[in-house]
Amino acid sequence: MDLDFLRRMTIPAKTKIVMLILDGLGGLPMQPGGLTELETANTPNLDKLASLSALGLTVPAAYGITPGSGPGHLGIFGYDPIQHEIGRGALEALGVDFDLRPDDIAARGNFCLLDDKGVLVDRRAGRLATIEAKKIAAILNTIKMDGVEFFVEPVKEHRFAFVIRGAGLGANVSETDPQKNGVKPLLTQGMDDASIRTAEIVNQFINKATNALAGEKHANGILLRGFDKLPVIPTYQEIFKLNPAAIAVNGMYKGVSRLIGMEIIQFQGTSIEDEFAALEQNWQNFDFFYIHVKQTDTAGEDGDFDRKVKVIEEVDALIPRLTALNPDVVIVSGDHSSPAALKFHSWHPVPTLLFSNYVRPDGISSFGERNCLKGSLGILPAKEVMPIALANAFRLAKYGA
Amino acid sequence: MDLDFLRRMTIPAKTKIVMLILDGLGGLPMQPGGLTELETANTPNLDKLASLSALGLTVPAAYGITPGSGPGHLGIFGYDPIQHEIGRGALEALGVDFDLRPDDIAARGNFCLLDDKGVLVDRRAGRLATIEAKKIAAILNTIKMDGVEFFVEPVKEHRFAFVIRGAGLGANVSETDPQKNGVKPLLTQGMDDASIRTAEIVNQFINKATNALAGEKHANGILLRGFDKLPVIPTYQEIFKLNPAAIAVNGMYKGVSRLIGMEIIQFQGTSIEDEFAALEQNWQNFDFFYIHVKQTDTAGEDGDFDRKVKVIEEVDALIPRLTALNPDVVIVSGDHSSPAALKFHSWHPVPTLLFSNYVRPDGISSFGERNCLKGSLGILPAKEVMPIALANAFRLAKYGA
Repeated sequence: MDLDFLRRMTIPAKTKIVMLILDGLGGLPMQPGGLTELETANTPNLDKLASLSALGLTVPAAYGITPGSGPGHLGIFGYDPIQHEIGRGALEALGVDFDLRPDDIAARGNFCLLDDKGVLVDRRAGRLATIEAKKIAAILNTIKMDGVEFFVEPVKEHRFAFVIRGAGLGANVSETDPQKNGVKPLLTQGMDDASIRTAEIVNQFINKATNALAGEKHANGILLRGFDKLPVIPTYQEIFKLNPAAIAVNGMYKGVSRLIGMEIIQFQGTSIEDEFAALEQNWQNFDFFYIHVKQTDTAGEDGDFDRKVKVIEEVDALIPRLTALNPDVVIVSGDHSSPAALKFHSWHPVPTLLFSNYVRPDGISSFGERNCLKGSLGILPAKEVMPIALANAFRLAKYGA
Repeated sequence: MDLDFLRRMTIPAKTKIVMLILDGLGGLPMQPGGLTELETANTPNLDKLASLSALGLTVPAAYGITPGSGPGHLGIFGYDPIQHEIGRGALEALGVDFDLRPDDIAARGNFCLLDDKGVLVDRRAGRLATIEAKKIAAILNTIKMDGVEFFVEPVKEHRFAFVIRGAGLGANVSETDPQKNGVKPLLTQGMDDASIRTAEIVNQFINKATNALAGEKHANGILLRGFDKLPVIPTYQEIFKLNPAAIAVNGMYKGVSRLIGMEIIQFQGTSIEDEFAALEQNWQNFDFFYIHVKQTDTAGEDGDFDRKVKVIEEVDALIPRLTALNPDVVIVSGDHSSPAALKFHSWHPVPTLLFSNYVRPDGISSFGERNCLKGSLGILPAKEVMPIALANAFRLAKYGA
């Protein structure tokens, strides 16, 4: 649905919505005729909730498209992930699970090798080993400048994510990579006032970096390109009139949540149970809760069918603590599928459950991919789940007379 | 999905996709409570394939819209048939199964009756009998001019399709039909350099035609209007990074296939078995194969339910030869429905099967309209089938991180 229309239609209410995202929830059978991870898991509590819910399958970004976690989350959060694209610098930072803030400037970096005159010998520093790259990054992370913070986060081999945090920075900054060896790296230039100031800071940082790396034999310089910020996206407050909170352990999910106006709840521990405890402790303070469970995706990407099943069962055991809070609407879904059979994110639609006292219950007593196919939500774009949740929370006005 | 987005996302791979189109596949029961043609047919091989596939129903152009074969094919080929409209002249040529090429200039023609001063007596030549029109067309098809070829293809009564083939022609050519009797036909005029040259050729042709038809009593002149070319549509190579081939007997399907960059495979014979033999012989040379079966549509349009059933069974018997090639993805669908009960193309969604080793099999062991409704593809726009097929062929990159 068009966000401007949705903004017009949303009304405040006292109701509470919980969105529980099991990352990479959707799966595949390991062999023809078999069951998926979710179909295999013993989930009495989710099954009971399913029997009172509307079920369906969500298409995260578009038919056939395999989303990263960023676009996958934007979809289930109610945004069109193709319209609201996350740029390359920001993506690099989110991709290494960096907690990127809306005002941070992010870029993609290469460690490189320079000769004693500062001329590029190898733009990729011989694709140096990741372990060497980590040492180089550690050196660069000691560089300090007044009023700004720098983050150098290794990605793989010569690649790293570069982030500058500070007030009044701009991302209209040119790249320093000349795209060929045998010349010196470029000085970066800013294209507007904030970016001119930022370019000066970047050039100073590069200078300090080159000094700090003098004598390193694997890599002694850096190249930066693809400067950008997180996209500006209308927040949950603006569009949905919600006061939302995010409960997540990993930085990337905090970054995407913060982008859309969620408050990141601080809590002790990193287990799924710790996340549910944080939900209980903060129940009075917010009217929308996003809870992120990372371990389903990790198990799927590891190809570990059984571990993914166990994580789902672990979540299931905690469901009574969620329902005991008496939420008005509960969504259980994923940001995409991560079948253990494939060992990576996939394009498959994601099993989704929407509980409220006002759905037409499908009367299906088991939560799984093929049962969701029979459910009354049908196969729908992920971004359409939020309007249905808002309706069930009496947070959408009547359209017309 | 937006084609520009899709173009960004596609990646090359070694996988092979086969799209088997049974023209007008979708059907209706002949009486309430009955089965459709596909549901009636005994199809053990398609049923076996279905049990390993994702099933669904495709909407060719839009809800309720009955497409011709041109738009119907554009849909299942992955394009929006409403956005990529085929013009009236080109449509007339395709409609009589003419193998229209991308550079051909096509127009709609009327045979007409002129008096001895060249003034229009009847713009439609008394809606002369189609058999008479064929004789007139045969005379006109003897007209020769250097550097160009002409084709006069009878449609029905006074209507014919007119095609000029040659280098450097333009379609910005005005019509010769003055839209009333009692005046002379207009001279056509070109609106740009290539079209000015084309208009001269058309005027010369009309002159020669009038001379050749002097003394004919049913029709002794022609009127031409709706000059156009096939639309320019991004090709399969450009968008999908596929090297596609078409196996079809009839000209119209070759024309639409050529339009989107498919190579038209030459082969002996015209039977469905000959088409499957052509698939086998060319298996190594392409990574996408479109196979067109015309006879389902012809039987449907003839109102011959039993013959349509038999054609489906004939195709079914050949399926093992397709699966023996070990394709990565198989799509079995139609370009539209042609129920024998209606005797014409219809708007009904089309039963569709998508096999790969990476679908969640629906476990439905019979391929038919009402079983497809239970399948995991759901009811979807025909143009969304290709992105799903590409995903299953590992030909789409991950979107974002």
